[in-house]
Amino acid sequence: MSVTFEVFRGSKEGKIVADKTTRTLQPNEVYIETSHSGLCGTDEHYLHSGMALGHEGVGRVSQIGRDVTSVKIGQRVGFGYTHYVCGTCEKCLTGWDQYCENKKEYGSHDHDLGSFGEGTVWDANCVIPIPDGYDSADAAPLMCAGATVWTVLSEYGVKSTDRVGIMGVGGLGHLAIKLASAMGCHVVVLSSSESKREEAFSFGASEYHVFKAGEEIPNFKPLNHLLLCGSASVDYPSLMPLMEVHGSIYPLTVDLSCTPVPLLHLNLKGVSIQGSLVASRHSLRSLVEFAAKKKITPTTMTFPLTASGVEDAMETLRQGKMRYRGVLIRQ
Amino acid sequence: MSVTFEVFRGSKEGKIVADKTTRTLQPNEVYIETSHSGLCGTDEHYLHSGMALGHEGVGRVSQIGRDVTSVKIGQRVGFGYTHYVCGTCEKCLTGWDQYCENKKEYGSHDHDLGSFGEGTVWDANCVIPIPDGYDSADAAPLMCAGATVWTVLSEYGVKSTDRVGIMGVGGLGHLAIKLASAMGCHVVVLSSSESKREEAFSFGASEYHVFKAGEEIPNFKPLNHLLLCGSASVDYPSLMPLMEVHGSIYPLTVDLSCTPVPLLHLNLKGVSIQGSLVASRHSLRSLVEFAAKKKITPTTMTFPLTASGVEDAMETLRQGKMRYRGVLIRQ
Repeated sequence: MSVTFEVFRGSKEGKIVADKTTRTLQPNEVYIETSHSGLCGTDEHYLHSGMALGHEGVGRVSQIGRDVTSVKIGQRVGFGYTHYVCGTCEKCLTGWDQYCENKKEYGSHDHDLGSFGEGTVWDANCVIPIPDGYDSADAAPLMCAGATVWTVLSEYGVKSTDRVGIMGVGGLGHLAIKLASAMGCHVVVLSSSESKREEAFSFGASEYHVFKAGEEIPNFKPLNHLLLCGSASVDYPSLMPLMEVHGSIYPLTVDLSCTPVPLLHLNLKGVSIQGSLVASRHSLRSLVEFAAKKKITPTTMTFPLTASGVEDAMETLRQGKMRYRGVLIRQ
Repeated sequence: MSVTFEVFRGSKEGKIVADKTTRTLQPNEVYIETSHSGLCGTDEHYLHSGMALGHEGVGRVSQIGRDVTSVKIGQRVGFGYTHYVCGTCEKCLTGWDQYCENKKEYGSHDHDLGSFGEGTVWDANCVIPIPDGYDSADAAPLMCAGATVWTVLSEYGVKSTDRVGIMGVGGLGHLAIKLASAMGCHVVVLSSSESKREEAFSFGASEYHVFKAGEEIPNFKPLNHLLLCGSASVDYPSLMPLMEVHGSIYPLTVDLSCTPVPLLHLNLKGVSIQGSLVASRHSLRSLVEFAAKKKITPTTMTFPLTASGVEDAMETLRQGKMRYRGVLIRQ
């Protein structure tokens, strides 16, 4: 069974280009008619690569391969970074399938699969059912931004009695505030300016502090967890006074360069720096269920899911004007 | 009740100087006649400070304050970094009393208390009973070197099925090999040269690799835990290929400077860098009991516990000739 669908690729010149691709549906694959896609900062990294962009997709399954039993035609599903995991390696068996030894993901294995376009082909085992009543426009940003912070909040021992710091109020940070607050945590927002104070409280923050590297925050009560959600590089020595004994710092960074870290100070406080990667299927499923149950939705700006809509959204993000996640919607 | 005892201090010139000090025993304090002391690399850091040196002591209690009930006169005890913890702060209550908010420790609070000398005064709650039959010369190095690696091995989820890497075979590293091996772990030694291969296997290592920054080790099976036990600075990008998904790196460093860390690579593997500090009372007690039960002893060189003996031992360590921990013994 073959499907032909339009995808939006980047190009050498950085323009978004519409293109058709044809795939033969494998026995366990599904074809999804994409209705919504979030926009992530990392899409920018692939803008000149020529690959189909986007990895925060939601749509309806409209065709299924002959062996597919887990998903039905007409079902609404999300799809993110990963389009195939083996299900049998040690990582899959222990619930950490984002590290599957045989996975195939957005950007690394298939230049035609992305969420910017009219559809995509996906392994049936890697789609995420969206609960009835939860809006597709809200579900899309959960596939990467939400999942990135949810993996930290749900897999590394964050407790409802903990003080959870969120540094950087953007696509990831604003969702981290909402999710951690819904988990019952005391959410402490650290931002470079006063400008997002009111909104942060409306998202569920309990404290808001302006943080500048090298400046002390008076009477600051230390944090059990600190999620670094900003895109700017962070001065680690300045973070140390913020951390409680045995606290953990999560650098949700895509920065390729090395960062100077004061290791002795990690020891003196027993602090850890914990790497974390979006997202196991379990983590994605538990996230959409939690968000639906708690009525947690991203705060979004919407754009049409067209080549020019993608360009407008990317330009808005580039200018630092996205509040707080861009969602592209098929008209 | 007052006690007068000889202590060995450093001095401006770096000579070891014998000096007398007099203390009045507080109600919950004990006086310990020191019979043995280990020598730690960090003693060198305080050599010019004028304070009494040494923090790996063992001796017999010979006087007790009027409220002491937990320790008896004549009892053999060890003492390490910490001479007082409050027992009531949140850290003490949760078993992490090395981070006690009111602790007093070697170097920071009392220039007269150390294990280089004929005795010391210690809070009765902070001495570690030494099991009968376990030699004091073997117990002394457990108070810091042993406890430093034991805290990592016993408090951060190391399993007997794990591959545990030990980088650097010295005072800490050789004990880490013996302890991890006795825990049933597969112990992988990484050393800068071939010179310690035979000995590492005799300590319980299962693999031995020469590791050089920037050079790949062929067919290396990744590690669940990696203890950095050397004194040299480490190239973190070179460590990344050694680590298994969700592995942890423990930088047992006293290096004051910042170290460049590839945070993105921590994320891609879900690896953590976990700070750790010697040692709770619980950890010290469980260590001496485990070592006694499993007949694990440090490999030592001995020196007389005199001013010139301390100088000889420190010079041996400086020259990189200590195999593997120096122990000073009262004649």
